[in-house]
Amino acid sequence: DSPLVVAGREFSSRLLVGTGKYKDMDETRSAIETSGAEVVTFAVRRTNLGQNADEPNLLDVLSPSRYTFLPNTAGCYNARDAVRTCKLARELLDGHNLVKLEVLGDQDTLYPNIVETLKAAEELVADGFDVMVYTSDDPIVARQLEEIGCCAIMPLGSLIGSGLGILNPHTLSLIIERANVPVLVDAGLGTASEAAFAMELGCDGVLMNSAIAHARQPLLMADAMRQAVISGRGAFLAGRMPTRLTARASSPGAGLITG
Amino acid sequence: DSPLVVAGREFSSRLLVGTGKYKDMDETRSAIETSGAEVVTFAVRRTNLGQNADEPNLLDVLSPSRYTFLPNTAGCYNARDAVRTCKLARELLDGHNLVKLEVLGDQDTLYPNIVETLKAAEELVADGFDVMVYTSDDPIVARQLEEIGCCAIMPLGSLIGSGLGILNPHTLSLIIERANVPVLVDAGLGTASEAAFAMELGCDGVLMNSAIAHARQPLLMADAMRQAVISGRGAFLAGRMPTRLTARASSPGAGLITG
Amino acid sequence: DSPLVVAGREFSSRLLVGTGKYKDMDETRSAIETSGAEVVTFAVRRTNLGQNADEPNLLDVLSPSRYTFLPNTAGCYNARDAVRTCKLARELLDGHNLVKLEVLGDQDTLYPNIVETLKAAEELVADGFDVMVYTSDDPIVARQLEEIGCCAIMPLGSLIGSGLGILNPHTLSLIIERANVPVLVDAGLGTASEAAFAMELGCDGVLMNSAIAHARQPLLMADAMRQAVISGRGAFLAGRMPTRLTARASSPGAGLITG
Amino acid sequence: DSPLVVAGREFSSRLLVGTGKYKDMDETRSAIETSGAEVVTFAVRRTNLGQNADEPNLLDVLSPSRYTFLPNTAGCYNARDAVRTCKLARELLDGHNLVKLEVLGDQDTLYPNIVETLKAAEELVADGFDVMVYTSDDPIVARQLEEIGCCAIMPLGSLIGSGLGILNPHTLSLIIERANVPVLVDAGLGTASEAAFAMELGCDGVLMNSAIAHARQPLLMADAMRQAVISGRGAFLAGRMPTRLTARASSPGAGLITG
Repeated sequence: DSPLVVAGREFSSRLLVGTGKYKDMDETRSAIETSGAEVVTFAVRRTNLGQNADEPNLLDVLSPSRYTFLPNTAGCYNARDAVRTCKLARELLDGHNLVKLEVLGDQDTLYPNIVETLKAAEELVADGFDVMVYTSDDPIVARQLEEIGCCAIMPLGSLIGSGLGILNPHTLSLIIERANVPVLVDAGLGTASEAAFAMELGCDGVLMNSAIAHARQPLLMADAMRQAVISGRGAFLAGRMPTRLTARASSPGAGLITG
Repeated sequence: DSPLVVAGREFSSRLLVGTGKYKDMDETRSAIETSGAEVVTFAVRRTNLGQNADEPNLLDVLSPSRYTFLPNTAGCYNARDAVRTCKLARELLDGHNLVKLEVLGDQDTLYPNIVETLKAAEELVADGFDVMVYTSDDPIVARQLEEIGCCAIMPLGSLIGSGLGILNPHTLSLIIERANVPVLVDAGLGTASEAAFAMELGCDGVLMNSAIAHARQPLLMADAMRQAVISGRGAFLAGRMPTRLTARASSPGAGLITG
Repeated sequence: DSPLVVAGREFSSRLLVGTGKYKDMDETRSAIETSGAEVVTFAVRRTNLGQNADEPNLLDVLSPSRYTFLPNTAGCYNARDAVRTCKLARELLDGHNLVKLEVLGDQDTLYPNIVETLKAAEELVADGFDVMVYTSDDPIVARQLEEIGCCAIMPLGSLIGSGLGILNPHTLSLIIERANVPVLVDAGLGTASEAAFAMELGCDGVLMNSAIAHARQPLLMADAMRQAVISGRGAFLAGRMPTRLTARASSPGAGLITG
Repeated sequence: DSPLVVAGREFSSRLLVGTGKYKDMDETRSAIETSGAEVVTFAVRRTNLGQNADEPNLLDVLSPSRYTFLPNTAGCYNARDAVRTCKLARELLDGHNLVKLEVLGDQDTLYPNIVETLKAAEELVADGFDVMVYTSDDPIVARQLEEIGCCAIMPLGSLIGSGLGILNPHTLSLIIERANVPVLVDAGLGTASEAAFAMELGCDGVLMNSAIAHARQPLLMADAMRQAVISGRGAFLAGRMPTRLTARASSPGAGLITG
């Protein structure tokens, strides 16, 4: 398998993870290590990167030399806030320009606001950011985001934190077939088989947080997810058997022994 | 994780594989090795275990010291033939008494014939065999087979060779919840995510052949399946997050930075 | 459309209904009338057909001149009880020989016990009964029941009273394709679209009770179900459009007006 | 049931139909009559409303006194064309201001272009049109279209002409729950049970064309669809039974006869 390449950066792991929702910083670190993720995302507006000297600093837990940071704009409901948040992250992280843009529609669904997402993407790309973008499973919007210059398209499988998996594999497939940049499912995955399924559809990677952090045993699930992504990617590359509505014997041909 | 225990035999791999449908004996061996399987099944009536001196002998390819053999009765359509086939296997394999019983209903569907399966199971158990039994997803029949003394219940996910996955997770769950012997999905799995899903439902293992042998690249798929089973088992043990119809922010709580 | 013919009896309605679970006898009668059903089924062991002079008698509510009675063996867990119950019904109903056989596996699932069902079917057919038989979605068992001489095969969609709909359309289709007697889905339907779907699969009819009786407004649901069955049957006869994974314009061809 | 009210117009039928894809004008008229539809939609750019004196005129076939016309902008790929097309329709139809706006993303998917749809909706509403709007199943966009002043939101079930049904009932439900104007599923429905299902989800109506016109027997399907919509609406109003993962006997309580 070839590495995942996003905006010129190469990754051997296709599982990206969030840092939120864990019991404590220690569980956060262990789960992320176990997941094998090389890219970790965190909400700039809710993470201490040193602004608050008295509180735990994420940079003390996750070393920038080991992980690629993917600051995100969670909690932003319009383009202005999202752009400002990305700029703040770039400043706090010494010019780091890889970001995950998410502009949400409302607090009940956390569904993306597409109009504001497109606007923010345009500004951020123009300002030199490498923009990985959280979006709906709308294939036309996905293409528009690619045309704007986003470096990865990240459609939802289902609502953030819902654990409902990929509710519409058909539209997701349309996005994957037509994209020229990596497509990663972001949001909605709840268990290992769903991560494998995402990869089998042809996704280039998946991003998750709740599925690991809210499992009964986060470390066990982190490991299961690590393997699920590798497994689903392998199945995709292997090329699955065709399906049939009628049976076919596992051991066809004339019987060797006729009983 | 604890090992899979079937009739007192312990296995660390929960993926069981068939030997049919491969291009040649070499591909058979490589795929099985890659799958990590410890138990391999083959149709007694269609496999050369030495009866035909001039043809390739499965025992030359798969060493009995490395693998646990699981001779099966594929191609049998009544109890009499199935019992006779198991006895033939025991003879050819020097008293080996672990078998996979399958008595099929017809050649179009390869769906099990439950009445003949129950009859054969009874005879085989009485004759000292350790019977792993291919069956439908009927929870009452599953219990009857357990009561007869079968050492593992192996319901279909869907028709043999169909690759349609697990068509009725609900009945499969009923079987799993109520069984006191291992339950393994046998037949129908087509790709890695489906194997992981079977394990997440709480299956003790899965058995497959076509999904690996008929993949475009069998070795790659064998590896993907190996990982999928481990991953799905891990997710089952980890305990997946609950699903929700509404969203929940990955990074809840009051914003640290208010932009 | 041609009528539904079961054991020589013709029916214009393809919706068969139960009599249980209603608030009172009046609701029972109104719901059944509204459903348009011509066949009504009731549990012989739980229905007063005149044995208890002091209690409401079903025959006072549903006139035998208007409805075809289908006494059933609900509550029987072995062939002996089921056969005895059918004979009792024949006696109470002056030689009426159309029955619905159900032999259940246990009280938790109410899943059919196939072995006892086959045994009872054989005895009842030999004794001159016209046997409509509740069964699993096992296509081999369905054929065996037909070979025994049952006049209608009635596979479950899902567990009795579950309202989960048709969980395995694939096996149901296998039964329908291969049957030479009517196939009716019995058990599991929960709402109108599921009844329509059953008919679209090619079922000859459906039988339900809870879906109507346990709806918030049973009479409204009875009417919805009446229409759903007619609608689904119509769609089956009409022959649905083929599905496509890509789009096709509703108004193809060169534009008339080029704007 | 109360009537469907769209922009002050009342309709007793909740099935809206298209006029395209039929064999000839005669079949168009018969199918529409049989469907019971009161609202008929047609692509302004592809329909002769009198501009071409030598060709069949839709107004000769479908009387404006009997049907409410819903001219649509099929074939438009940007807001400018869509707005212009609506104005042309208003002119050709003597000031008729009810339109169905659809601005498509590309010819392969016919998926809506949300950005252009929002822009066109704004212009049309400002210009006095009553705009029923074809859109994706994005709940945020649905609300934005409602806020702009559209009189009905018409999300796709799946791609136009695909017949794949409702691929994501979850997002559709989110739209329905939050909308204050009628929500109608437009595009993707393929058979009667899917139309019933749309109504059971709480849709106020459905619009279809291919499902009827491309059925093997369009008139039969038109009738099936008419009933499916009524049936699904009835089931929605009736309130379906709750689902259960375990069984519940149809005839509970102590047995009357103890055999």
